[in-house]
Order: sequence, then structure tokens, then C-alpha cells
Amino acid sequence: MDNEKKSPRDRKRDVKGDWGERKRAGRTPEAVKKSEDINWGRQVVLQLLKDSPERVQKVYLGKNVSESFARQIFSLAEKGNMVVQRIAPEVLSEICGPVNHQGVACRIGDVPMLELAEFEAALPKTGPVMLLLLDHIQDPQNLGAVVRSAEAFGAAGVLFPKRRSALPGGTVVKVSAGAALRLPMVAVNNVSQTIKELQGSGFWTIGLDNKKGRSIWDDAMPEKVLLVVGSEGEGLSRLVAENCDEVVRIPLSGKTGSLNASVAAAVGMFEWARKWGPRA
Amino acid sequence: MDNEKKSPRDRKRDVKGDWGERKRAGRTPEAVKKSEDINWGRQVVLQLLKDSPERVQKVYLGKNVSESFARQIFSLAEKGNMVVQRIAPEVLSEICGPVNHQGVACRIGDVPMLELAEFEAALPKTGPVMLLLLDHIQDPQNLGAVVRSAEAFGAAGVLFPKRRSALPGGTVVKVSAGAALRLPMVAVNNVSQTIKELQGSGFWTIGLDNKKGRSIWDDAMPEKVLLVVGSEGEGLSRLVAENCDEVVRIPLSGKTGSLNASVAAAVGMFEWARKWGPRA
Repeated sequence: MDNEKKSPRDRKRDVKGDWGERKRAGRTPEAVKKSEDINWGRQVVLQLLKDSPERVQKVYLGKNVSESFARQIFSLAEKGNMVVQRIAPEVLSEICGPVNHQGVACRIGDVPMLELAEFEAALPKTGPVMLLLLDHIQDPQNLGAVVRSAEAFGAAGVLFPKRRSALPGGTVVKVSAGAALRLPMVAVNNVSQTIKELQGSGFWTIGLDNKKGRSIWDDAMPEKVLLVVGSEGEGLSRLVAENCDEVVRIPLSGKTGSLNASVAAAVGMFEWARKWGPRA
Repeated sequence: MDNEKKSPRDRKRDVKGDWGERKRAGRTPEAVKKSEDINWGRQVVLQLLKDSPERVQKVYLGKNVSESFARQIFSLAEKGNMVVQRIAPEVLSEICGPVNHQGVACRIGDVPMLELAEFEAALPKTGPVMLLLLDHIQDPQNLGAVVRSAEAFGAAGVLFPKRRSALPGGTVVKVSAGAALRLPMVAVNNVSQTIKELQGSGFWTIGLDNKKGRSIWDDAMPEKVLLVVGSEGEGLSRLVAENCDEVVRIPLSGKTGSLNASVAAAVGMFEWARKWGPRA
């Protein structure tokens, strides 16, 4: 990770959110892993219990929450066969760290990651399919934001490199509003190799850029598409851009001259959904 | 601010970024105000010195930076008539807090905020104009992200309520990549009143929603448009939605059923830029 190239937002987060960065700062991976697996807050825990009960390992419920909220939690936990532990609010604060946990938290299991081959085998053979490939996104908050948008705009999966990239963990689940537990997360060995592989399976590969290529509005997106988004500081790497079928530009005004990576991914997917997404 | 309705991301930030929230946690506003005005990091400070020299009050340069970087800073500071103070890296860390400051920081002045009347008077009388009105966005990071996208997609200004809303400060400047210092920031008294006022000036007002209204893809956006985006948890308030000329839906897939407020704003503005933005 090149600190020179990171936005102030990324930099600020280094000290706070990211597992890899905390390790650097001298904390043991175990201590961090603990809080990394914890999701907190009423809406968040309720949604996880409803949508992804199989990913929830344990629920921590403060002793001071209202009866009606406790009943809601117990009823969902019973359905999902989960353990609920009643604990003092101070203990909950210790588990969650300095956040507003609202009296409830849960421990989630590892986010399941797929290999490219098994993911591809499960894809529909016909009809519109959009995939998103991230060229070394560094910030788990950005990854989480991308995954949330990917689910909303109908991506069939999010692909990212196994190395030198943010990986889906607790922060990503939180920021994605749980989408990282519902959408296939595919860890690939090599970005360029993945592009070639998917081109072989009929995917038209579009690299998103802010300077080069035809305008994203010039042509409609093809039905079966792989969108490739660059990292926060670097954008699309030269080699990856060369491997894409085309590089498409998001026309921009103003001096900044670039979008946040998660916004670039979102408008790319939005543009695909315009032609191929749900109309309902 | 209703904690029940906030996403895990917002909640996590409460303890970290937001001035209002820190105050709650017992810190003095003065202490926070201090670090809130500081922007750090090489790219960030260089860009501020180049693009917004009139907003930079003072530059803090670590004694341990390379000669070539120091020369770059001094040369820009001289042009902009700014004071550069050489300080020990430890002192810089005290000023910036626990971040990777990369040996440089600067203190920025208050973000200038306009009143609606003066902003309106300065708007072009003909041609395409897109404005963004935020219905009580709470999170300064979201506001910053929105402002960065607003500049990139050609908004003429970002409007937000003076009360119960995130306001542009240091965090917003940082996350917006400086766009908050370049784009007009307009503080309004009342969201519904502002809609009526701008309707009177010929703006078609579109409220963005994820459930109600016609699809955003059914009709092209009009030339002169006011886009209204709801807050993180609540979305568009009923009263505000009723005051809009129309409510337009961003069609979504998946279980989350909503977009991050900054993504919703981005795709709305992107859709306007498709017809009226720069083609270059």
C-alpha cells in the first residue's frame, strides 16, 4: 500500500479500521480479529439475524435493553438456532470498542470466499450477467461500500485479488449493510489472468477510467459484462487496462478530476443496470 | 440525530470524525475545532496549496522531510503568501492526531458558506444548471463524499440545512478532496422552503427515492434541475417529498433495498450529466 497515493480518508482509516494496518501499529492480530468479527447496533443485528442467520455465531444482548427489543432478538435467535448471551452494558462496550452499540452485538463467522472456477460454474449460462472486478482496492470501507452498491445494482459477484487488496471481513460486512454475506465474494490470484479467463467465457471487459477511452454514455453496456475498477490512488494499472476489451471514461467536471473508487464502481454498475437491470 | 436509524458506518464514525459527536463524548469543542481545521498528507496539502491557496492559513512542515519535497512546499507557499513553520515530527503528530501525516499538514480557514439569495443571484440565467439539496445528511464523511461527486458531475452548488445537518468543516474538505473549498456551499434555513424558492426560479425539483416514483431511466433529466437527497437513515422526509415536483426512483436489486446516501446522490447527478454535462 502506497501511502503517498492515498486520500486523506484512507489515511485516516489506516489507524482505525483496517486489520492489516492495525497489525502494523503493533497490535496482535488476535485482538483485532476479535473486534473485527463483531457487528453492533439494533438495525444491523436485526438485519443480520433475518437475512444471514447462518453467518451469525452468537448474539450479545445488553441487560438494559427494553423487553420488547429483547423479545424480538430472542424470537429471531430461536428461529436461527443461535445462542443469545445477556451481558452487562459495560461488557458489551468492551467487546465492541468505543462505538454506540445500542445494547446489542453479534459475532459473525468468516465471510465465505469463492474460487473463480467454482463461482463461474454456478453462473447462469444465458441472460444478462454483470461482474465487478476490483484492481487492488485497499480500504475495507471502500470495499464495503462497493459491495453494498454491487448488490443494489444487480452484480452477480464481486471479484478481488487475494493479495495486496482489502478482503471481506467484519468492517466490510458492516459497511455493506450485510451484502458481503449475501453476494458471492470471489478471491482471485491475478487480475489480468482473471480478465482473460472471463473473456474466454464470453464476458466483455470494460475498464473504468476518468481520462481515457470513449465516454460511458456513447454506447449501451453489453449484456454480459465484467467491469474493472482501479485502486483508490493509482486507478487502473496499465497492464490491467491493456487487458480489458475497452477502457471507458466517466466524463468529469471540476478540478478534482477523479471519483472515489466506490463512486466510480457505483456509476459503472448503474449504467449497466440502466439497460439490463430490474425494471420493477 | 436518531441513533436507531444510523448505519454501522455512521455509528462507528460518531466516535471518530464528527464534531458534534465528539462533543457528546465529553471533549471540548475547542480541542476538536483545532484538529478539525487541519488537513494532512502530501498530496492533500499540495493540492490545497495549488487549488485553494486563499483558504490555507498556515503550513506545518516536518523537519525530517526530503529537501525536494520541502522545496516544493516553500515554492507554493511563497506564491500564495503563506507562512510555513518547520516543526519536529512529534509536534506534527500532536497537531494532527493519530494519522499518517507524511510530514506535512496545513490549517485551513473556515469553509465559506453562502446564503441562498446571494448564491441564486450568481447563478447563470440560461443554460443547464444542476443543484443538489441534502435533506439533513448527518455524517461529515458522507457530506464530503457527496461534495466530491458534486464537483465531478458538474453541480453548480451543494445546499444543506443550517440545523440538524453535517456542515462543511475540515473532515468534509478532506473527504471531498478539496472540492468543498471550490464548489459553492449553501446553508439554507429550511429544506421545503428552499424547494419552493428554487421552483419559483424555474428549477424542476426531483426527490430521489429507492421505492417510490417513476424510474430514473424513464425520462431524461431537465436542463435546470434541483436534486433532493434524503438523510442516511430516514431517506427523503414525507413533507420534502410532497414539495418536490416529482419523486424519482433508482431501481434496485437485492435485499439491502437502499443505497448509501452519497451513492444515491452520485448516480442522480451522473444521470443529469449524461444529458447536460461535459462531453469533452
